[in-house]
Amino acid sequence: MAGTNAARGTLPDKMPLGPAIILVNPQLGENIGMCARAMLNCAVTELRIVKPRDGWPNEAAISAASGAICVLENAKIFETTKEAVADLEFVLATTARNRGIVKDICTTEAAAKLIHEKNAAKVQRCGILFGPERTGLENDDVALANAILNIPLNPGFSSLNLAQAVLLTCYSWLTCDNPFKIAEVERTLGETEPAKKDDIENLMKHMEDELDKGGFFRSPEQRPTILRNIRNFFFRSGMTQQDVRTMHGILSCLTGKRSWK
Amino acid sequence: MAGTNAARGTLPDKMPLGPAIILVNPQLGENIGMCARAMLNCAVTELRIVKPRDGWPNEAAISAASGAICVLENAKIFETTKEAVADLEFVLATTARNRGIVKDICTTEAAAKLIHEKNAAKVQRCGILFGPERTGLENDDVALANAILNIPLNPGFSSLNLAQAVLLTCYSWLTCDNPFKIAEVERTLGETEPAKKDDIENLMKHMEDELDKGGFFRSPEQRPTILRNIRNFFFRSGMTQQDVRTMHGILSCLTGKRSWK
Repeated sequence: MAGTNAARGTLPDKMPLGPAIILVNPQLGENIGMCARAMLNCAVTELRIVKPRDGWPNEAAISAASGAICVLENAKIFETTKEAVADLEFVLATTARNRGIVKDICTTEAAAKLIHEKNAAKVQRCGILFGPERTGLENDDVALANAILNIPLNPGFSSLNLAQAVLLTCYSWLTCDNPFKIAEVERTLGETEPAKKDDIENLMKHMEDELDKGGFFRSPEQRPTILRNIRNFFFRSGMTQQDVRTMHGILSCLTGKRSWK
Repeated sequence: MAGTNAARGTLPDKMPLGPAIILVNPQLGENIGMCARAMLNCAVTELRIVKPRDGWPNEAAISAASGAICVLENAKIFETTKEAVADLEFVLATTARNRGIVKDICTTEAAAKLIHEKNAAKVQRCGILFGPERTGLENDDVALANAILNIPLNPGFSSLNLAQAVLLTCYSWLTCDNPFKIAEVERTLGETEPAKKDDIENLMKHMEDELDKGGFFRSPEQRPTILRNIRNFFFRSGMTQQDVRTMHGILSCLTGKRSWK
């Protein structure tokens, strides 16, 4: 997200085996490079290319990869799709169109699950086919696959560019069992710690004292309700120790005192 | 996936309210256009832009949007991030870096769930902030958010370009409750129907007859096991009526007959 990363990307040591990404007759080197980048973002590293239009290696691919050089350096080049999938056991073909071909279709998420399962169970090597930019996969390529992979998008606007299709596919695979994932919701605290209930109660006492002194509670009946609401706000707000100290300082300042203990 | 879609993209009639996508100080018009395209792919349409560097409207944005013109035409332009989020109730800030700021961090998937819940419960308007290409969001922008959104990627190579970050965020939102999703695995059949068990049993009978005539079973003890294996293969393979007819034809051809009934 922070713009171009010129540094060479690396792969973490321990990762489940990702699918091979197979680009069939890609046209622009730039797109190949962006695919490599999207793959490495998701810790997918095995790139296979069937007859790249502009030959190989390709300078435009290297500069568009923004550092995902290890993926390009290890890319394998093939003459035909058949050769590119020869050593694989389970192959998916990405295609947006229903081709009147008898084949299971699975969503990106179902495909990700299938690949993880196949790798976990018997280490079946999996691959995903992507067609050329303008035309997509030909029927003869689709016939080589076990199933069709469909990325479910807005039917009124479902055209993705090649690297985006690769990104969503690889990200779905990564998300399926993501070792880099934080807990669903986590808190970053910086230099401070969460406040203890006691700290907050202490702050409430300070507040209550000052409000009493200032004549804040016009009617004694309302006092408990108002205090409960204030206490509720403080406890709900997830204060840190720093926040509590700051609030003490604010109270002291507003009441003309320099410090509070 | 089929290259540039020059046709104007459209939005389906019934969709849950997506998050507003807020681009803070984007530099290149091309990136704004690609963000609009990624949004409309995922049926997210509300784009807000804070001080785009090259002014607005922007020709480069229009051509990079590949047809997602409705998103650009309805984009709202703001002078400050504060104004861009003023009418929203729940705002997330995308940032890869831990900024020593006290704030909840949620994954893309957790964020998607939160946005769906907030919309379903009370229709709280939600927005997601994205910083400029090179520098990302500033601390003052992050402070306006309720929580930080983190896209969990390969820590050795986590840099995404702006449109890819928008794509993954919007796709996660769409995937959370995707009205365009097929059943997890679905089958496309083209012109034919799945074979009935009877059809396959009939084919087995044909096969068995011909194998008997050809003296295939050298030892009578092995006969049941071999037949069971063949039957198992045919039943497992998900044959269509077309496949069954083809297999009959193959059997007849191989045994020198023109047709079989």
